[in-house]
Amino acid sequence: MSEPQSLTILGATGSIGTSTLDLVGRLPERFVLSSVTAGTNAKALAAIARRHGAQFAAVADPAAYEELKAQLSGSGIACGAGPAALVEAAERPADRVMAAIVGTAGLAPTLAALRRGTTVLLANKECLVSAGDCFMRTAREHEAEVLPVDSEHSAIFQALEGRNRDCVETATLTASGGPFRTASLERLEQVTAAEAVCHPNWSMGAKVSVDSATLMNKGLELIEAHHLFALSAEQLRVLVHPESVVHGLVSYTDGSVLAQLAPPDMRTPIALSLAWPARMTTPVPRLDLARLAKLTFEEPDLVRFPALAHALAALGAGGGAPTVLNAANEVAVAEFLVGRLRFLDIARIVGAVLDRAAASPLTAPAELDDALELDRWARMLTREAIARAPESA
Amino acid sequence: MSEPQSLTILGATGSIGTSTLDLVGRLPERFVLSSVTAGTNAKALAAIARRHGAQFAAVADPAAYEELKAQLSGSGIACGAGPAALVEAAERPADRVMAAIVGTAGLAPTLAALRRGTTVLLANKECLVSAGDCFMRTAREHEAEVLPVDSEHSAIFQALEGRNRDCVETATLTASGGPFRTASLERLEQVTAAEAVCHPNWSMGAKVSVDSATLMNKGLELIEAHHLFALSAEQLRVLVHPESVVHGLVSYTDGSVLAQLAPPDMRTPIALSLAWPARMTTPVPRLDLARLAKLTFEEPDLVRFPALAHALAALGAGGGAPTVLNAANEVAVAEFLVGRLRFLDIARIVGAVLDRAAASPLTAPAELDDALELDRWARMLTREAIARAPESA
Repeated sequence: MSEPQSLTILGATGSIGTSTLDLVGRLPERFVLSSVTAGTNAKALAAIARRHGAQFAAVADPAAYEELKAQLSGSGIACGAGPAALVEAAERPADRVMAAIVGTAGLAPTLAALRRGTTVLLANKECLVSAGDCFMRTAREHEAEVLPVDSEHSAIFQALEGRNRDCVETATLTASGGPFRTASLERLEQVTAAEAVCHPNWSMGAKVSVDSATLMNKGLELIEAHHLFALSAEQLRVLVHPESVVHGLVSYTDGSVLAQLAPPDMRTPIALSLAWPARMTTPVPRLDLARLAKLTFEEPDLVRFPALAHALAALGAGGGAPTVLNAANEVAVAEFLVGRLRFLDIARIVGAVLDRAAASPLTAPAELDDALELDRWARMLTREAIARAPESA
Repeated sequence: MSEPQSLTILGATGSIGTSTLDLVGRLPERFVLSSVTAGTNAKALAAIARRHGAQFAAVADPAAYEELKAQLSGSGIACGAGPAALVEAAERPADRVMAAIVGTAGLAPTLAALRRGTTVLLANKECLVSAGDCFMRTAREHEAEVLPVDSEHSAIFQALEGRNRDCVETATLTASGGPFRTASLERLEQVTAAEAVCHPNWSMGAKVSVDSATLMNKGLELIEAHHLFALSAEQLRVLVHPESVVHGLVSYTDGSVLAQLAPPDMRTPIALSLAWPARMTTPVPRLDLARLAKLTFEEPDLVRFPALAHALAALGAGGGAPTVLNAANEVAVAEFLVGRLRFLDIARIVGAVLDRAAASPLTAPAELDDALELDRWARMLTREAIARAPESA
């Protein structure tokens, strides 16, 4: 038996955090918890810290500090609150850090983990979309390994790992197509927030569900893949695959395509990131292709899903465009969720903001602060665009 | 630029040999031909030897020697004929030996190549089906690498290679299902040799086409996979997949399944075996899943395809059973092809011969001679069974 690995979970109360704890909790001899963090839910975080014997717990929201302290009273578990406490959680010794904080709040703690040379299990999108160059450079400088947690990136990782990179022609991320895959443009104009948050295959948060419905999610994943795997925009493809069984494919120069398949259950890619280069045994149902009977594939429709077209354009443009894309999308989706934008307005606004931003040359953010500043500026542009847009409700 | 690799092709005029030469001929700076062999076609062999600058050419048929000699006159290419000449071809120095002689005639030369410690690109089925233990032991003893050429085994090889073997749950070979995948038992009783040799996806010889139609081919491949990858009978699966795009899948303990896909073109797995651990660029059409639109899967039907059930039983029984299975099938298919057995008689005869052979305990052939003796005995049993069978025409 080898020594147990110590694990920190940034974002322990969310969907990825919960699945991670489900796996780790089954293997107490293989994993010990170092730190855990949450956004505001002090009670849930304290229960996790106690149940799994963590050493440190931190909430992002300073207002939740007193409750966290009270909930952990007598446990001997140290605690903190606010952005600095999240960074402290990331910096405490751990063999692996699961980076599952959603949004730009995840940037600073994840970079802090990289700077310690820790293996980062990356579930946060913004690290790569908003600050990809900075993030990957930091990983290289500190020889920190980055293991993807997203199912599509985990698939590409598995299809690439140990293979000759010079022989890679393309990498393809699959997309379920979301709940409106077959909807007409007219129907898309009418989509409500309540409809958009219901994903057919995956159980996810509201923001990600909307991104999945617009296909922006896949666009952001292409940008992530570009950074994670050092693949060019020309090498990256999207394929709509409604069954969400094939998660990613890598095509090689000899005509071979290597793919990873699994039933849609986040515990499989999470398990890979926890155990790689070994694999753990998970309780997920095994793939039964004969029972599924068929897998289907189609090209994405960039006319009905213009958000993906904008993401492809931002990926191709490079520089600061992906940061702007992500910020504009976050603001637009939030406005859609509260009923102040219509579904197709999300892509219209993102496109308009990208066009405006393109007027000034934008270099890729070299440091975290540059990324955050560009992000703020793009959010401001987006709010202006929304206020001005004649289409907005 | 690295030195060119020297390559010997045993079975240069057949389907695998021709595809190998197609690839090698495009990369004269990377491959030089050492020896080439053929069964009887001296003229075609001499043309290959001249065109590709081989140093030695051998025909299996001694009667073809004079023509081979005449055809090579003045070329400076040495030549020979008969079984000893095939072994000489295999023993001459070469970095890789493509073992593509069909049938038991391939056993001795392929073993000779292994004994030199040469990397063997294995397209001959009988080496593993009839003499698997002996073959793999010889490879280990001489530290000779064995790279599969069959598309299904190439897929499994790619899905396994470099991965943690302790974490493998199962390996699945796909089967097109052959031309009678949806045929009723009544229809199968009526299948003629002319119908059985027309395969929907692959262009192959008559024997392999019939094996593909009975699904015996897949059974033999399971036995090969058992030896090639040290997988138990319980770990091996067959999945019917009419499109022949997914060639093999490996399931891991975390729920991940790694698969290799490619359009049905033998040049892709051949290229892998020629270049591994690198990959070469091939001219094969690239996979276009959106154009294919769907891939389908179903369980094999062991009632309509009893040959596969017999192969599974032989794999499970181990010992000499696979050798007997293969010999009985070869004789039965030959009789079917000349119209002396009906289609379903092939499996009936194979089953009867396996039953009779099981009456005496059969250990796995330890040496080539043991395998050849068991093979001869099983052929004799088969001819007896055919002569006795009331069903035979």
